[in-house]
Amino acid sequence: MSLIVQKYGGSSVADAEGIRRVARRIVDTKREGNDVVVTVSAMGDTTDDLIDLAHQITPMPEPREFDMLVTTGERISMALLAMAIKSLGYDARSYTGSQAGMITDSTHGDARILDVTPSRIREALDEGAIAIVAGFQGYSRDTRDITTLGRGGSDTTAVALAAALNADRCEIYSDVDGVFTADPRIVPKAHKLDRISSEEMLELAGSGSKILHIRAVEYARRQGVTLVVRSSFSNEPGTTVYIDNPEEENQVEEATIAGVAHDLSQAKITVVGVPDVPGSAAAIFNIVSQQGANIDMIVQNVQTQNDGVTDISFTLPKITADGVLKALEGARKEIGYESIRFDDQIGKVSLVGSGMRTNIGVSTTLFDALSKAGINIDMISTSEIRISIVTRADLVPEAARAIHAAFGLDGESEAVVYAGTGR
Amino acid sequence: MSLIVQKYGGSSVADAEGIRRVARRIVDTKREGNDVVVTVSAMGDTTDDLIDLAHQITPMPEPREFDMLVTTGERISMALLAMAIKSLGYDARSYTGSQAGMITDSTHGDARILDVTPSRIREALDEGAIAIVAGFQGYSRDTRDITTLGRGGSDTTAVALAAALNADRCEIYSDVDGVFTADPRIVPKAHKLDRISSEEMLELAGSGSKILHIRAVEYARRQGVTLVVRSSFSNEPGTTVYIDNPEEENQVEEATIAGVAHDLSQAKITVVGVPDVPGSAAAIFNIVSQQGANIDMIVQNVQTQNDGVTDISFTLPKITADGVLKALEGARKEIGYESIRFDDQIGKVSLVGSGMRTNIGVSTTLFDALSKAGINIDMISTSEIRISIVTRADLVPEAARAIHAAFGLDGESEAVVYAGTGR
Repeated sequence: MSLIVQKYGGSSVADAEGIRRVARRIVDTKREGNDVVVTVSAMGDTTDDLIDLAHQITPMPEPREFDMLVTTGERISMALLAMAIKSLGYDARSYTGSQAGMITDSTHGDARILDVTPSRIREALDEGAIAIVAGFQGYSRDTRDITTLGRGGSDTTAVALAAALNADRCEIYSDVDGVFTADPRIVPKAHKLDRISSEEMLELAGSGSKILHIRAVEYARRQGVTLVVRSSFSNEPGTTVYIDNPEEENQVEEATIAGVAHDLSQAKITVVGVPDVPGSAAAIFNIVSQQGANIDMIVQNVQTQNDGVTDISFTLPKITADGVLKALEGARKEIGYESIRFDDQIGKVSLVGSGMRTNIGVSTTLFDALSKAGINIDMISTSEIRISIVTRADLVPEAARAIHAAFGLDGESEAVVYAGTGR
Repeated sequence: MSLIVQKYGGSSVADAEGIRRVARRIVDTKREGNDVVVTVSAMGDTTDDLIDLAHQITPMPEPREFDMLVTTGERISMALLAMAIKSLGYDARSYTGSQAGMITDSTHGDARILDVTPSRIREALDEGAIAIVAGFQGYSRDTRDITTLGRGGSDTTAVALAAALNADRCEIYSDVDGVFTADPRIVPKAHKLDRISSEEMLELAGSGSKILHIRAVEYARRQGVTLVVRSSFSNEPGTTVYIDNPEEENQVEEATIAGVAHDLSQAKITVVGVPDVPGSAAAIFNIVSQQGANIDMIVQNVQTQNDGVTDISFTLPKITADGVLKALEGARKEIGYESIRFDDQIGKVSLVGSGMRTNIGVSTTLFDALSKAGINIDMISTSEIRISIVTRADLVPEAARAIHAAFGLDGESEAVVYAGTGR
């Protein structure tokens, strides 16, 4: 008998009909002889509505109270889901993050999971019941307060429970059929992958793919949890994110290339005429990190002239750009640069695949495909299994399609494009 | 320095503006140098909306999950209220029933309070903070689950906290100015009372007055908590429900008559031709109580003929009538009665006043007033400080006005009639 953890996102439980649909699916899973644990998000736009309500009260809601407020969304959906399952004749009980043993630090709005002690869940399963757990929330022993887990919190709740309960797999349900070789909305010929390695999924998530939050993928990888990405609106088997074991000799090498991700959330800052002396780069990035900005790519121009200065470019999330620009402008004298250039019309396209490790011709094929499409490359960055290029934002769809085609990822028919939110 | 507990009902916190208004009032109370503890209901119709959502899922929601669901309403309002107070520059923290130490039995939907251990509230007050507590909910140590307190639960939460914290008073806020000598909607000349004894309030609440729930009044009386009934929409001082001490000789006798209550929620059942032998009445009421129906008035006709049978009439809440009628019909042979008459067009009007204890002419004045108004009396029931009569439902307003006038309760001007819900 398997133990399966299922996570249902807000779009799957958007209304009473959705809740009943999800309840039937859960019961089907139980009927197959499995132990079932479910984590659920708030219904539809509930969380946004609650945040809106808070902002009607004050522009800066107090963090402890804000967490108390927004966690009601998941409590509502978990209780309704348990009711629905019971009305189908199966025992189901809902548990808050606290009751489920999701212990976190006390950082409201962005709590880290410290420990997962799901003894009440275990008891419920032993009694043959289905356990429903509120996603996105935990409990701080220090302050005895409810906390929310920050971005990726709902997926991470599911993975953390799966790890703590030694689940056979963790199924993540949303309104998309699985992990695609690219975003079907910009690459119509993208197709759904049956399998992808955890390592590749991690790179895709870090390169702009919104299917799974990188935090959850990391947690799963670290804990050895197999993920399955599925749609709650169909019976498609979805995509299995399997735990790849580099030590294992028999590990069959999967498809050379997994897919293409794109990211339009970044901006580029170039610090022009930085004195080419030790410490300049450090000074710049010190200021940037003080702003709490997450830097993605860095390119320091290779010195060609002997003029003692260089240019340093880096990309960062657009929403953090303002603060960083102000801070850099304030530190002009200290760093001694000439000027700053800002570009928020960039886009990043990444090719991910474990096969890149051993296959030498990948970069050639990629640059060739882009060249044929007349797309100029602004920045390049690579990892063991990923190549990313930065180009003009409006050229991203074309670049993605060109790369996708060049690597044989185009499906036979056009992917069915959902207005899916992937939530 | 006083410790004041304030309870705000759903109509006071119906929207963001209401929450901010209540926050200002709370801050004003704090500014006067008091320790302030607030219990709050769910915003506006939130509880009804949640119940509706549950019924979209199933007609019979599982009790444990139902409590988990509906308690989110109070959590939302308490968090928003705490945010609002903080935005005014005062420290405020919200607490669930569990966090506030509201310990109950495990009867979901109708939990009894077993103990109140508000140590976290006490800590908050000692640190100078205002404590906001979610009303209508508690925690069962047995099952480690959240419970709701049933009817009157919100008012009772406030009173229970006031008792446990030894508060100087417990202010109950709604959208009405206080306790009136009658319901202004049927007796326009009703006026607001400045004071009323706890004993009189208990009788009024038990006779149909909806201002305070009888459960909360009983709790306050038992624990010696002074209540104040006020409107959150004005600065009127409201009505003080003082703890009367019958032992106290110096206790000044307050107004002879407190007011007139009416009750249109009852129906009358008459069991005709009951064998006039020991055990008949017991058999009837055994059946009735098995149905869980709360019997109000009982009249067994005085035997005038020697025919060995009598008629027994009793009143009970209309909503329980169906079940009782069916049960009685099923027990016809067993009891041996002739027939059953059912009347759901009755109404009860009650006159309440501590002065009735010593004043002999009260019943005369009452029956006289009704007679002059041409109102027929169907049933009569009395207690030490109350006289109730049952008449035709459509005559209730007239009866109430006649009695109100006869006892000098008419105010100089017409009471301002709010569309108040009293919630």
